[in-house]
Amino acid sequence: MKQLNRQQIMSILPKLDLISAIEDGFVQYSRGKVVVPPVGELLMDKGEVHIKYGYVTAEPYYVIKIASGFYQNPALGLSSSNGLMLLFSQQTGELVCSLLDEGYLTDVRTAIAGAICAKYLAPKSISAIGIIGTGIQARLQALYLKEVTDCRKIVVWGRNNIKAEKYQYDMQKQGFTVVISKSITELAEQANLIVSTTPATAPILKAEHIKPGTHITAVGSDTPTKQELATDLLAKADLVVADSLNQCQQRGEIFQAITSDKIAEANITELGDIIASGQGRDEEQQITIADLTGVAIQDIKIAEAVYLAS
Amino acid sequence: MKQLNRQQIMSILPKLDLISAIEDGFVQYSRGKVVVPPVGELLMDKGEVHIKYGYVTAEPYYVIKIASGFYQNPALGLSSSNGLMLLFSQQTGELVCSLLDEGYLTDVRTAIAGAICAKYLAPKSISAIGIIGTGIQARLQALYLKEVTDCRKIVVWGRNNIKAEKYQYDMQKQGFTVVISKSITELAEQANLIVSTTPATAPILKAEHIKPGTHITAVGSDTPTKQELATDLLAKADLVVADSLNQCQQRGEIFQAITSDKIAEANITELGDIIASGQGRDEEQQITIADLTGVAIQDIKIAEAVYLAS
Repeated sequence: MKQLNRQQIMSILPKLDLISAIEDGFVQYSRGKVVVPPVGELLMDKGEVHIKYGYVTAEPYYVIKIASGFYQNPALGLSSSNGLMLLFSQQTGELVCSLLDEGYLTDVRTAIAGAICAKYLAPKSISAIGIIGTGIQARLQALYLKEVTDCRKIVVWGRNNIKAEKYQYDMQKQGFTVVISKSITELAEQANLIVSTTPATAPILKAEHIKPGTHITAVGSDTPTKQELATDLLAKADLVVADSLNQCQQRGEIFQAITSDKIAEANITELGDIIASGQGRDEEQQITIADLTGVAIQDIKIAEAVYLAS
Repeated sequence: MKQLNRQQIMSILPKLDLISAIEDGFVQYSRGKVVVPPVGELLMDKGEVHIKYGYVTAEPYYVIKIASGFYQNPALGLSSSNGLMLLFSQQTGELVCSLLDEGYLTDVRTAIAGAICAKYLAPKSISAIGIIGTGIQARLQALYLKEVTDCRKIVVWGRNNIKAEKYQYDMQKQGFTVVISKSITELAEQANLIVSTTPATAPILKAEHIKPGTHITAVGSDTPTKQELATDLLAKADLVVADSLNQCQQRGEIFQAITSDKIAEANITELGDIIASGQGRDEEQQITIADLTGVAIQDIKIAEAVYLAS
């Protein structure tokens, strides 16, 4: 059994073509070649744990991921998120590799999904990347977007100005020009590729903010109560894409818009189908939205890629 | 994070008072102090995987166990069962200990539950221990019964005579006198503490076999289709005990007897309540039956005990 710690995993990641690996996963998922049982859950006083697991039927491994959120951890000097991934053989059940990533691979595979959405759905010419939020996803989404766009201008908006300034400082060191936006209206005027990365429970981005020719990827909402996009905005969009049709009917932005009768299930396209057909945005003036709730196939594919390169 | 392999775990086990630890677990379970969500499951071409997990609300850890059965493994020179247990902090979500036991702790905690049943339910004087089956549970059940009875006579029955002779040879080296029985009738005449450990799907032990003053622990059935005891035998018993009332209504011997209307749910007692009251067998001439389907609290308690002694 191989074991990789966070540092070892981080040194392997730059060698990998994760966009191709996870695109392949989404395509197989949309074709019904992936088994992903319902998520296991433990809700405790100080935190919560989710167990995501599954496998691609024709491939050699199955993966079990344990991810936790303990929101008092930062006061103890610890990250609130933690976890590990375990890769087993579908032939024998033997544990092949423990990936003690402390939750980092979940952050990366989420950012990769954002880059995939931008690859197929963003306009050809990006004026600026709009980032809503200043946390880990606000950083990783921008960093992985480098693989699919040449744009190096970020317009960022966050509730906390000190965190926004820290974000600006950090991301300028990563080769971006970063402007701190005073309002969502200003951000949406300047940016035509917007990524929302907050745990908001009331809409931040509204229909009136968004100009034609904008793509939005909503990363923050993965529960039935979190919401970053107004349901009117989904109604206004020319194309709404779900990472998983099944999950998005139960949580996230699409769930909110369906339950308030603003969009119909039949008008939603699954990300794997977009990738398989290569047909995302048809016209530059469309408004497109991708809702990412996080699917176990992303964990399966990233764990396998890291293991095979180790 | 501490990591223990199978050999290290096996060297720690003799130091532990596992009967007390798991008794405490069953009592807390029956008092509603244990959270055990539904078992996660992956069913693949070559094998199956179960994920059992949970925690005692007032205690410091939560445990996730992954156990697999790949039934073509023996042809490859590998054990069919495999697995590991992971112990995390309820305070921070940090992984505290990986127990890479390859499934051994599941075998041990099952045998400990058998010893606990014998402690509360077997007659005071054991004439002989009847063992049905010749596999790993047939061995471990007898070995852990040493902690609760002085009887060192085993009467064993198995379908395969070569395996029965191997069992006799191995267990005589462990300090037992072992007689191979030609029939279940003969076994049940000689033994008044019987442990059935087979994956049978049709009853082996029937009402007419069992004399008054016998205790039976049924270990083999943990699914809705496996069955070792005739439903008439459960109807004839003076006391029927479940490791988990909830699980035994859905799988195992009690499930079979309830669905064929031979016993009523109201007449079943949970093992944790027997332990808490100290009241098991009332009279020497009673027939008592314990049905063990395996509960995650056993995994939680054995993982914690091994970790704390490591």
